[in-house]
Amino acid sequence: MILTVTLNAALDVTYFVDRLVPRASHRVDTVHERAGGKGVNVSRVLAALGRPTTVTGLAGGPTGTVLRAELRAAGLRDELLPIAGDSRRTVTVVSREDGDATVFNQSGPRVQPADWADFTAWYAQLIRHAAVVVLCGSLPPGLPPDAYGQLVTLAAAAGAATVLDTSGPPLLAALSAGPDVIKPNAAELAAVTGHRDIAAAAAELRALGARAVVVSCGPDGLYALTPQASWRATPPERLSGNPTGAGDACVAALAAGLASGTPWPDTLREAVALSAAAVPCPVAGDFDADLYHRFRTTVTVEDVHDAHTDR
Amino acid sequence: MILTVTLNAALDVTYFVDRLVPRASHRVDTVHERAGGKGVNVSRVLAALGRPTTVTGLAGGPTGTVLRAELRAAGLRDELLPIAGDSRRTVTVVSREDGDATVFNQSGPRVQPADWADFTAWYAQLIRHAAVVVLCGSLPPGLPPDAYGQLVTLAAAAGAATVLDTSGPPLLAALSAGPDVIKPNAAELAAVTGHRDIAAAAAELRALGARAVVVSCGPDGLYALTPQASWRATPPERLSGNPTGAGDACVAALAAGLASGTPWPDTLREAVALSAAAVPCPVAGDFDADLYHRFRTTVTVEDVHDAHTDR
Repeated sequence: MILTVTLNAALDVTYFVDRLVPRASHRVDTVHERAGGKGVNVSRVLAALGRPTTVTGLAGGPTGTVLRAELRAAGLRDELLPIAGDSRRTVTVVSREDGDATVFNQSGPRVQPADWADFTAWYAQLIRHAAVVVLCGSLPPGLPPDAYGQLVTLAAAAGAATVLDTSGPPLLAALSAGPDVIKPNAAELAAVTGHRDIAAAAAELRALGARAVVVSCGPDGLYALTPQASWRATPPERLSGNPTGAGDACVAALAAGLASGTPWPDTLREAVALSAAAVPCPVAGDFDADLYHRFRTTVTVEDVHDAHTDR
Repeated sequence: MILTVTLNAALDVTYFVDRLVPRASHRVDTVHERAGGKGVNVSRVLAALGRPTTVTGLAGGPTGTVLRAELRAAGLRDELLPIAGDSRRTVTVVSREDGDATVFNQSGPRVQPADWADFTAWYAQLIRHAAVVVLCGSLPPGLPPDAYGQLVTLAAAAGAATVLDTSGPPLLAALSAGPDVIKPNAAELAAVTGHRDIAAAAAELRALGARAVVVSCGPDGLYALTPQASWRATPPERLSGNPTGAGDACVAALAAGLASGTPWPDTLREAVALSAAAVPCPVAGDFDADLYHRFRTTVTVEDVHDAHTDR
């Protein structure tokens, strides 16, 4: 089972309007609501691939109740821990005229120290059944900066591998715990290391403790630095669209590969194919199954033999 | 007691952002939530004036639960009837840079015929204790077009006076039931009658059944056509700001005057003073008490002796 952790679970709300006009009053004719947050999206992709998955993390208040009901209605196994604070919403306003999306992200409720203690105990139970744990997204206010590091350490002690997809200080603070895979995008990698050479920056994060670093480079595909080798995986065509959905699909493929013990080149091929198949979908957690099956055989993976691998 | 009816009660949510940029992703740092809908706002103003008031109407789902809790926390008497559908939210995005507000209005849940039958029975109980009933706002989907007409008829049978503040077909369909006061704004009056001469248009709505027509003309104040006379009431200075809040404050003053049997010129003076004191407040249902007390003595009310009164 692949356990996904979403510490700042959200209710993702989409409003459709004719056209977004600042300072105007808009009639919203269609509203979609669904459970969100990166870990939830990763579990949606895994479930669509037929992989057993469980959602945990923190959710609370009336918004938490709605998001948990939606999660269960979608057929996902919900092991979120209830907290007192009301979960955040994200509101995406989509203009029918041109399809453009404008996003409003709430920061989420402040998590109390007792909630965090309860969560780590709950998580320690859940990881006993997990082959891989996926840790995703921003930390809500109130959590210790090394929250992900603590969860990586607990997973390692229980024999579960970890995939970490976060950025900034929560990413840096987790590296010394030795996550098996981290997946920054190119901009996040540059932000935490201070330089733009992807191979050198990835090597820096490996030196700080990450076992493998997979960097998502948008339409250019992936760069992966692992203990064995480094690779570039490139999609057969350049696609543009939903980068959040592409990133979450990539993480799902990395977790699935890790759970199955798949060789890195095959896992990277799957990750690029699934990301590229998610790009045209407006909602994160969805992918186009036909595109996915077409891309699986046409992604190229090359061993880049650079200076940063151990061999 | 003044009973306010809000058939499409809302949770009014305000998001503060640095600046609204279409197509961008925004971090929302502050979120305010409060119960809304015109009738709720009218009750807030009445409560602030020390007038006994009760809120009824329809609210349901998780959003209904949150809005009812907020209503009670604000000290308002909540007699909303629960329905199965989830109440709507309105989201107002306020830009800190310039204070500009951009509004997204959901349409509200579809009301089932059984809900409407339950509501009219519940309303028939509540109006036994009401001197005045205030009927405000848009009708949610699923209600009969003459819903307000039915409520006016029931109120009249119970000996309660009615103030109706709505627009378009729901306003036209209610006139034959003979509401005591209707309060269109100048644009709503022009839209339902098809012409812009305020006195003539108001006379047309009186001919269709409204006993008194009070037209709000923004910074120009009010025009009132009653069975006794017609008046213009003008604020001492031109103010601009929140027109929703001004309209709701005006309705509160009209209802309070009707409940006390206050002569029309005094009621109109109060209505203009209270509206003008609400204009600078960003949130409907609030007014500036100092401005209100200053304006009460400086509003001018003149008898306009036009051709449309009965005398």
